[in-house]
Amino acid sequence: MAETTPWLTETEQHAWRSFVRLHDKLVNRLAREVQAESGLSVADYGVLVHLTEVPDGRLRVLELAKALEWEKSRISHHIGRMAKRGLVVRDGCPSDGRAAFIVVTPAGREAIAAAAPRHVEAVRRLFINPLTPAELAMLAQISNRILDELEKECE
Amino acid sequence: MAETTPWLTETEQHAWRSFVRLHDKLVNRLAREVQAESGLSVADYGVLVHLTEVPDGRLRVLELAKALEWEKSRISHHIGRMAKRGLVVRDGCPSDGRAAFIVVTPAGREAIAAAAPRHVEAVRRLFINPLTPAELAMLAQISNRILDELEKECE
Repeated sequence: MAETTPWLTETEQHAWRSFVRLHDKLVNRLAREVQAESGLSVADYGVLVHLTEVPDGRLRVLELAKALEWEKSRISHHIGRMAKRGLVVRDGCPSDGRAAFIVVTPAGREAIAAAAPRHVEAVRRLFINPLTPAELAMLAQISNRILDELEKECE
Repeated sequence: MAETTPWLTETEQHAWRSFVRLHDKLVNRLAREVQAESGLSVADYGVLVHLTEVPDGRLRVLELAKALEWEKSRISHHIGRMAKRGLVVRDGCPSDGRAAFIVVTPAGREAIAAAAPRHVEAVRRLFINPLTPAELAMLAQISNRILDELEKECE
């Protein structure tokens, strides 16, 4: 299969590299700007966003891994570090006694509430404002087109 | 400044999250598919791409960090691990004796040559094929529009 795949054209390669570079550059800038002020890394912020959007601020480890697109081992390590800082706690699953849930703490809720305005300001300035509403809509549509294909392939 | 920034609209938030989710999902899929076969992680692959595209396969640490959008500490750690596997070597800077260059080894060149067809096949299948040529061109244009702004802001 790989042997017969045509090499990327210059245009295709350019599109792919620009996409990856844009993501990495945005995330680095967000990291620098938001972390400097709030002490939350981009990863911390992502975990807290997902936890604070669900009832009781509580998700299964595997649900959180899926929402973040992280490998399970990365979640475990990261949650361990966030738990030490008091931002989340692990909560045992009553049916089998294992720690299967992650719950945001009041300190975690305070941390993301404090960081969110700065995060929103940076996303707006760096990502939203350079684009017209039509371009933003097109970007969302293109992203979702590829995501749909990826999700079909995974089933 | 942050205090007066309007919250993201639902459309804006959707565009931002789709973009981040798409990147993370693509990179995870590439990692699984390419690493399983070649033993190169996405990070290894990125380092080797940049080194094998320049004359002599040799870049200053800071040039490599900039090309990859990585923090300097991440580069140092990652290059250390790649050097242990024989994929790159550090090369001292004659003027001050510090190891300021990273050079790809013949083993590093072999590793990326072996991984590249699989990587290209995956990028084509997961990222290029779901889009029309017009959408791909639009995505590149949008990415570059934002990148230009980011680069202006950094100067």
